[in-house]
Amino acid sequence: MAGFVMQSLGCEVAALNTVNFSNHLGYGQAKGRKTPASEVTDMYQGLKDSHLDDFNMMLSGYLPGAEVVEAVAIMARELKYKATMKPGSFFWILDPVMGDNGRLYVAEDVVPAYKNMIKDADLILPNQFEAEYGRYPYLRVILLTFYRTLSGVKITDMDSLKQAITTLHETYRIPHIIVTSIPSLAGPGAEPSLSVVGSTITSNGKPRIFGIKVPQLDCFFSGTGDMFAALMLVRLREAAYNTEGLSETDSWVSADEVEAVDLPLACAAEKVLASMQGVLARTKAKGDLEMEKFYAKDVEVDEKELRLIKSKAYEVRMVRNLDCLMNPEITYKAETV
Amino acid sequence: MAGFVMQSLGCEVAALNTVNFSNHLGYGQAKGRKTPASEVTDMYQGLKDSHLDDFNMMLSGYLPGAEVVEAVAIMARELKYKATMKPGSFFWILDPVMGDNGRLYVAEDVVPAYKNMIKDADLILPNQFEAEYGRYPYLRVILLTFYRTLSGVKITDMDSLKQAITTLHETYRIPHIIVTSIPSLAGPGAEPSLSVVGSTITSNGKPRIFGIKVPQLDCFFSGTGDMFAALMLVRLREAAYNTEGLSETDSWVSADEVEAVDLPLACAAEKVLASMQGVLARTKAKGDLEMEKFYAKDVEVDEKELRLIKSKAYEVRMVRNLDCLMNPEITYKAETV
Repeated sequence: MAGFVMQSLGCEVAALNTVNFSNHLGYGQAKGRKTPASEVTDMYQGLKDSHLDDFNMMLSGYLPGAEVVEAVAIMARELKYKATMKPGSFFWILDPVMGDNGRLYVAEDVVPAYKNMIKDADLILPNQFEAEYGRYPYLRVILLTFYRTLSGVKITDMDSLKQAITTLHETYRIPHIIVTSIPSLAGPGAEPSLSVVGSTITSNGKPRIFGIKVPQLDCFFSGTGDMFAALMLVRLREAAYNTEGLSETDSWVSADEVEAVDLPLACAAEKVLASMQGVLARTKAKGDLEMEKFYAKDVEVDEKELRLIKSKAYEVRMVRNLDCLMNPEITYKAETV
Repeated sequence: MAGFVMQSLGCEVAALNTVNFSNHLGYGQAKGRKTPASEVTDMYQGLKDSHLDDFNMMLSGYLPGAEVVEAVAIMARELKYKATMKPGSFFWILDPVMGDNGRLYVAEDVVPAYKNMIKDADLILPNQFEAEYGRYPYLRVILLTFYRTLSGVKITDMDSLKQAITTLHETYRIPHIIVTSIPSLAGPGAEPSLSVVGSTITSNGKPRIFGIKVPQLDCFFSGTGDMFAALMLVRLREAAYNTEGLSETDSWVSADEVEAVDLPLACAAEKVLASMQGVLARTKAKGDLEMEKFYAKDVEVDEKELRLIKSKAYEVRMVRNLDCLMNPEITYKAETV
């Protein structure tokens, strides 16, 4: 998902597979293998040996164990260090993938390992709560625990989330933060919606918080976290390069006078959400048709089988919808929170 | 390379990585790991477990050992068997990758393993001779040995190649064959060119041989064999579906009255070569600029270092040139050989 999205938008991608699975874990089962940390390090060495480590950006996603997290942290620090003489020439997006679909993907010791490396990241993208928020209270607990571990703030509502973001800026000096898929409390008769809340730090460590609200599609998709992260990488770079001089500053942090809603991070997120809404709405429409056909056959299946059928029916229709990626139509705008 | 090309042209791809390397072998060195045959089989089992094995086409590329070749042969036969009640619903393109850039990639016992499975393939695409033809006589020997092993015909010129193709059709009943990158003997003053020679079997096992001649770019690229194979997959399917009823026949073999130059295989190859010439010409132009810059610096490097620099400079510019893939402009037409 992430590799294809970045490639189709013009990035040359060196994919370092931290797992090789037959399918994503939305199916509840998979064959394959987690890449050992030593192999990740070895592959990175291979890139260095042939001078193929001149990366402009890095996106780290699913890292299945603490050792791999540490291996990636070493890579990231080395790449950052190489770029010290050229501010802004290397940017690291850290997507702390920990679980999805109600399952914890990673070993328990991954959370503290992330805590050690998070201060080096330029943008963190905590995993989405997504449609499963509420439906999968376990995941919600993981994510909130993660934030709480990092920020020491107990998150129960938008105010405490803002407080947590503030603490993350202040304590870890993380330049950019985006939290995705925060469910909105819909009033009676209102359509359910999801919010994305983000912030870029100011020179004195304060947040600039914006939010973007999008309609919630009543459907569970797998891979949308990777899709969001990969699109953010492309669009944030684009937005940074559209602001004179910004791409040559450390971590692409906008001048203090830039308002929350005018941040490159906010502009990027608007485009990203437009692309995602396009692809996911089409995915849902096709998936609904497939499920209708299945129900029309009136065969009885058990819960496990139904999950397989549904997972396949709602596989994100990415390759046929490149137009949504390339030409997003912005409908949902960032607002000050 | 292959995965991205197919995805960007609208295919949903399940990539079963038979190797995980830090880089392609054009660099002369790489870190990483060959996937053991048991893991390939395991991944396929994972796809079956979740009903994700409903493939329309399969492209098999680099298989690093005889055991993996056998594992893939079992997969292919099973997928073919599943499709027996629906002729044409599964099509297997076998690209017998054995070497490139003067190096044998695979174990010696791979050649006989291929021999055992080749009769089940719908299209075989022997690896390209490419620019290294002549420059790397070793590779030429491997490829010719492969043909000779299969066909029993010693290939020295176009006539013996035609004879070999005829034998492959007759002996193994391979429906479609394409041999790429056959250097043309240029007359004095003529631009050097490469030919692609292909054939689709007739109902009585005879060949219909066509050739397409393209200008030879004086440059070595890595990954063009995968690019050719992936593009052929997309364009051959498209051509088969453009001929009424053909996609519902076994192996998409055209009726006997269809002339060589009008074969879907020929039409597909024309489009494929147009895309490739576009991408590679742009790659060469950019690569030449990079090398000019390098030479202008006037630093002394050893042969190994120069190879790394050249390999990187001439990395195929794929992601920025999607237009060549999507809208190929046909300039070189198939001719009867």
